[in-house]
Amino acid sequence: MEFLASKSSVYLAIILLFYQALGRVVADMDLTDDFFIPPDQNTTSLNGKYFTYTGLRGFKGQANTFASRKATVKEFPALTSLGVSVMLLEFQPQAVNPPHTHPRASELMYMLDGILDVAFVDSTGKLYSETVRQGDLFVFPRGMVHHQFNNGTKVAKAVSSFGHPNPGTINLPITLFGTQIPNGVLKKSFKVDDQIWIGNRKTVMACEWV
Amino acid sequence: MEFLASKSSVYLAIILLFYQALGRVVADMDLTDDFFIPPDQNTTSLNGKYFTYTGLRGFKGQANTFASRKATVKEFPALTSLGVSVMLLEFQPQAVNPPHTHPRASELMYMLDGILDVAFVDSTGKLYSETVRQGDLFVFPRGMVHHQFNNGTKVAKAVSSFGHPNPGTINLPITLFGTQIPNGVLKKSFKVDDQIWIGNRKTVMACEWV
Amino acid sequence: MEFLASKSSVYLAIILLFYQALGRVVADMDLTDDFFIPPDQNTTSLNGKYFTYTGLRGFKGQANTFASRKATVKEFPALTSLGVSVMLLEFQPQAVNPPHTHPRASELMYMLDGILDVAFVDSTGKLYSETVRQGDLFVFPRGMVHHQFNNGTKVAKAVSSFGHPNPGTINLPITLFGTQIPNGVLKKSFKVDDQIWIGNRKTVMACEWV
Amino acid sequence: MEFLASKSSVYLAIILLFYQALGRVVADMDLTDDFFIPPDQNTTSLNGKYFTYTGLRGFKGQANTFASRKATVKEFPALTSLGVSVMLLEFQPQAVNPPHTHPRASELMYMLDGILDVAFVDSTGKLYSETVRQGDLFVFPRGMVHHQFNNGTKVAKAVSSFGHPNPGTINLPITLFGTQIPNGVLKKSFKVDDQIWIGNRKTVMACEWV
Amino acid sequence: MEFLASKSSVYLAIILLFYQALGRVVADMDLTDDFFIPPDQNTTSLNGKYFTYTGLRGFKGQANTFASRKATVKEFPALTSLGVSVMLLEFQPQAVNPPHTHPRASELMYMLDGILDVAFVDSTGKLYSETVRQGDLFVFPRGMVHHQFNNGTKVAKAVSSFGHPNPGTINLPITLFGTQIPNGVLKKSFKVDDQIWIGNRKTVMACEWV
Amino acid sequence: MEFLASKSSVYLAIILLFYQALGRVVADMDLTDDFFIPPDQNTTSLNGKYFTYTGLRGFKGQANTFASRKATVKEFPALTSLGVSVMLLEFQPQAVNPPHTHPRASELMYMLDGILDVAFVDSTGKLYSETVRQGDLFVFPRGMVHHQFNNGTKVAKAVSSFGHPNPGTINLPITLFGTQIPNGVLKKSFKVDDQIWIGNRKTVMACEWV
Repeated sequence: MEFLASKSSVYLAIILLFYQALGRVVADMDLTDDFFIPPDQNTTSLNGKYFTYTGLRGFKGQANTFASRKATVKEFPALTSLGVSVMLLEFQPQAVNPPHTHPRASELMYMLDGILDVAFVDSTGKLYSETVRQGDLFVFPRGMVHHQFNNGTKVAKAVSSFGHPNPGTINLPITLFGTQIPNGVLKKSFKVDDQIWIGNRKTVMACEWV
Repeated sequence: MEFLASKSSVYLAIILLFYQALGRVVADMDLTDDFFIPPDQNTTSLNGKYFTYTGLRGFKGQANTFASRKATVKEFPALTSLGVSVMLLEFQPQAVNPPHTHPRASELMYMLDGILDVAFVDSTGKLYSETVRQGDLFVFPRGMVHHQFNNGTKVAKAVSSFGHPNPGTINLPITLFGTQIPNGVLKKSFKVDDQIWIGNRKTVMACEWV
Repeated sequence: MEFLASKSSVYLAIILLFYQALGRVVADMDLTDDFFIPPDQNTTSLNGKYFTYTGLRGFKGQANTFASRKATVKEFPALTSLGVSVMLLEFQPQAVNPPHTHPRASELMYMLDGILDVAFVDSTGKLYSETVRQGDLFVFPRGMVHHQFNNGTKVAKAVSSFGHPNPGTINLPITLFGTQIPNGVLKKSFKVDDQIWIGNRKTVMACEWV
Repeated sequence: MEFLASKSSVYLAIILLFYQALGRVVADMDLTDDFFIPPDQNTTSLNGKYFTYTGLRGFKGQANTFASRKATVKEFPALTSLGVSVMLLEFQPQAVNPPHTHPRASELMYMLDGILDVAFVDSTGKLYSETVRQGDLFVFPRGMVHHQFNNGTKVAKAVSSFGHPNPGTINLPITLFGTQIPNGVLKKSFKVDDQIWIGNRKTVMACEWV
Repeated sequence: MEFLASKSSVYLAIILLFYQALGRVVADMDLTDDFFIPPDQNTTSLNGKYFTYTGLRGFKGQANTFASRKATVKEFPALTSLGVSVMLLEFQPQAVNPPHTHPRASELMYMLDGILDVAFVDSTGKLYSETVRQGDLFVFPRGMVHHQFNNGTKVAKAVSSFGHPNPGTINLPITLFGTQIPNGVLKKSFKVDDQIWIGNRKTVMACEWV
Repeated sequence: MEFLASKSSVYLAIILLFYQALGRVVADMDLTDDFFIPPDQNTTSLNGKYFTYTGLRGFKGQANTFASRKATVKEFPALTSLGVSVMLLEFQPQAVNPPHTHPRASELMYMLDGILDVAFVDSTGKLYSETVRQGDLFVFPRGMVHHQFNNGTKVAKAVSSFGHPNPGTINLPITLFGTQIPNGVLKKSFKVDDQIWIGNRKTVMACEWV
């Protein structure tokens, strides 16, 4: 276990974390400070492949639904501390990306193909919506609830940029009705009739969300 | 209009913004750099009252419900760029603070009185819940969906701290079902039967949320 | 020593630090990115208790003095990278919290009970003072010298919010006269007569501060 | 001049800057804090169009060259303080995007079409190069000198994401040889023979760069 | 009043603040984003003089004392948002720079001439001291109480670097005993005998500090 | 291997990284939070020497050239997370510091001796130049291409301050013509005649830069 072979190598690994701790560009101490290199990476053999990510190649969604694939620091470690990531989005006709938030970044969506109805709600409850088409940009401010909907008959595709290596996604239907939030809390929060609601809830939880 | 009386005073007002632009403590240029003073404030008469906020005095909720009052930079301008704000919370028996998020800060809740069931859901859908009582702290990480519920028979009170002068609140029942998000999007997103759901939605929108 | 059992687990522990290095919300790589989990924590058994701190329960000061208890990231590790912490303050009648600074955060004090004389001095030497009572807020800007004094006859209590998980406290009487700063430096700095001063200093150091 | 019609409106305009000064999401004080609204914008009529940018529609380069079009906060003011921007890149066969830096952000390039030879040089002088194709990502760390070259026979297209609303571009051939940097400095810096070099410099400056 | 002559010029002035609000390099919108230009500056005539500060030329202290001169964003506006400033220090023999803090930055002191005894106290009360001489560096961490003392017979000079355009200085003898902090608070805080102390205090306040 | 002797010590080492992850002052958990202490440092024996750097003592350049010596976090670990570093510069008569950038900080140069011609180019291609002399300051904004040239007959010396513990330097002649950037890319980028250029390139690469 080479990484643990000596105190100095552990020390080095820890020291390089301090550079990242500064919240700026990071580096392997042996070589450079310009980016992050994992402690078990042989820096002399490091090359352009480390800065390349091919996991989005040939991304293809499924019939009748919305699909996405992301390239964040989890999938692509070279993004560590570089402050940026992307996500691919594909909407079959009539598919929706349900209301959600990104807790750690705004989303700047660039339309690659097709047409989408997009909207977000600000913290006062006002809805901002637009129909965007190939070549357009739409920005969803950080933390705001937003959705996208392909109301057309052809596939829509987009690539979204985030100013954070791991923006996170909070899918609201799943988070609210597909988790263990107690029924009593949901009934009071959504102020719905018990019987109907429990009916809906059960269906949702048992059949759709879980 | 003294503030507009001279280019130099306008210039001063703008210059002081630059200090804030650094994301750190701010200042009136005539006097100090240690905090922010509004451009129309007479700095020689500035005193401790500017740093005092009495708007939370005597906060008292209403029967059968949850009530809150906040002191953010909007209510208390001296907080400008100081990176902190608070909110008072009061829960009558059986009252709930519905699922919501704070897009710009984590919440550290300190229990002043009573007992609360609290929980948040992380971005993987896992629920973290606890029953907290007078003297306890619970932290809700930034951007996570969370709620509080007074499942007891006496009033519960808390004061919450935020590491941001304006954390924001996204009330999810209102944001999802009390705004102009199209019915079609909600039906697809929550995957519920049209008739029942529309029934719920109409009730919610017409009678409760708007 | 499970944590060291494999290179990959060490690697994981280090990787999660990188997320924190971004200066934002942090995460255990196995589970989520929404908060920090210590490397030796079993994430599957992680629950709401991790986000709860009970160490402030039943806080009670002592007769004739000022007492405080803090909940920072040191006492409450879940606060890691969440940007907030709190402190409880209790002042017996005539008790004072001596002049001090917090090097890493502003303090927003909320009065739970009683009355306090509070003040801070800005970097130009101007004093901003106020008498605050139950329900009031007072903000002490970051790094400014400030004190609180209970000039009344009943106990005063407050909870202070900080926009940093570890704001730090520099108690100035102790830092100046209770440490090893050389006598010669203090005499020159405070410009006092040697004999009297040394007399004071000895008393202070020997009997009170150390 | 409505914006200047009252002290309070000027004050409001200035106050909203303070929110931005916090380095986070920003807002018009009258409506919300969730994003930035220019002071002369009528907030009640604000709608989704403000968050839409159509200026990249139909972007088409020219024969035999590299072309780009950016959407930063200058072209798209809604990006203010949202921490993200994009740029479109189009490379005709054999076209090159000359060595350049972005002083304020890393660049995450997503290949829309074709094949590119890409590379950057770190601060130790090591070159990291790769040939990327449709669907691939390559990241150029902040401030590093990098170039892209279409060594193929068909057009290559990409969209690049930046974690900053205005990353900036320093084109190095132009900055070094197309500006008023004195000849003497360039000769000494590049250590070239005077006669030959001055010949090159004149050509470059007179015919190509200026 | 040219600055107020048109809404667009006011708008421009405000817009450029937003770039600064990002906490990064700033710019005049008409010209560039690479640095800050005051709104009343004619950008076409802007030249290298704007980035030059000559106010430290010929700095010379006085006999028997410590003297300093700073170049922060107040004296040198081009530093706006560039995150750096400096201060010159000159110590006559036996002169002391009294215990003080910088609330907004660490200080990295470079010795130009002579010898100094330097020290700081951390928040646990531990003193870190050293004797430094020409060519040496000493770093005082942000917010820590520190002093410098020339215990030799020749003049000592230094230049200090700060990672903030306006670090601020809190002179502790003046802040504690030369301001309007009430006598009662000081007596309790420093736990000294009333008569002696009041004697010292009066002397200090009346003769030395005010 | 003491550092790895127990899980708790590894844990401690990792925990202290979290403080740094906050992008602020850092600390060894056993002792203090006010600064960073390497994990293998015995904290009880830690003293002022840790905060002292003597590696710049007696810095002396060489004949006919520019020389520099830096004190960044790499040479001086106590700077970790303190946000500041310095560099000494010495220019023999007619020596030049070639065009370069600092990717992570602005540079504030203080002239210790002599006279320098200095300049930077902004991202629009405008040159800002000035002749500065002993006692002057000049600031080079972050990421901008800049150079210094001693056009006089006596030695010039300066000390530069950076608001980052590791600003980095990108030497442009070396980065462009002394690395493995392909000839074809350089020819296209600099638009020069092949034969002449390749001649220059070979000389540079073979004899000077590599």
